[in-house]
Amino acid sequence: MNKWMAEAVREAFSGMRKNEGGPFGALIVKDGKVVSKAHNRVLKTNDPAAHAEILAIRKASKRLGRFDLSDCEIYSTCEPCPMCMAAILWARIKKLCYGCTKKDAEKTGFDDRRFYNVINIKNDKKLLVKKQIDRKSCLAPFREWDKKPDKIIY
Amino acid sequence: MNKWMAEAVREAFSGMRKNEGGPFGALIVKDGKVVSKAHNRVLKTNDPAAHAEILAIRKASKRLGRFDLSDCEIYSTCEPCPMCMAAILWARIKKLCYGCTKKDAEKTGFDDRRFYNVINIKNDKKLLVKKQIDRKSCLAPFREWDKKPDKIIY
Repeated sequence: MNKWMAEAVREAFSGMRKNEGGPFGALIVKDGKVVSKAHNRVLKTNDPAAHAEILAIRKASKRLGRFDLSDCEIYSTCEPCPMCMAAILWARIKKLCYGCTKKDAEKTGFDDRRFYNVINIKNDKKLLVKKQIDRKSCLAPFREWDKKPDKIIY
Repeated sequence: MNKWMAEAVREAFSGMRKNEGGPFGALIVKDGKVVSKAHNRVLKTNDPAAHAEILAIRKASKRLGRFDLSDCEIYSTCEPCPMCMAAILWARIKKLCYGCTKKDAEKTGFDDRRFYNVINIKNDKKLLVKKQIDRKSCLAPFREWDKKPDKIIY
């Protein structure tokens, strides 16, 4: 398994187990080193925009001291939602690796399909190269969420 | 002029004059009262996602202690970008008033057209009612930005 994605999966587990948010993790990497990692914190912060990717971008830009992250890559345990996709584009990130698909998220109760009916995302490799890796390992936090007795649906 | 939009315009001026970000302001209102207001802080925070709408949603959800803002309305001096549109949908906000259009923003140098080639947003009144008001007043911060000698292009 890709070592960055493994770390993103650990983030997803950590946030879910602390009841900070849903089972999602993200990692930003530059020159083979982790710049930032984050998990979903919608429940902890009450911020509906506190998705793992948004928080990872916020931390990375703070750490690097610049809003242009074009030399960074992002790893996300799940295919980013339209908000996070647009944030990745605004950050000028050129490479995205993701694990689960939006269909996997939907099956786990994170159904933003109605948004996809409104916001349609096409792929443009000049802007962003998207690659799916390690889907099975990224599904593990979803499976734990499925069985989690004290989960808050949001 | 709509009083909430007038306040959003003041936010836009304030943020730009403090060099915290571009000339954009947003306000969240509930039951005829301001819940939160924010201006773009991309330059101050280096966070490429620190758009006025994202920050207003973050503040409002913190203040109300919940991630569901379906009883709130959002006022934005400019038509929200795809990231902010998706954040508004995630927040379950049902009504958006905006002033300038994305074309106005483009003319002022905020060109996210390349994103619109990738991310296409349709209107669905069941999810969100969009209304344009007070465009002329909302253009004023853009005009000041045009002439601003120390602006940082981002």
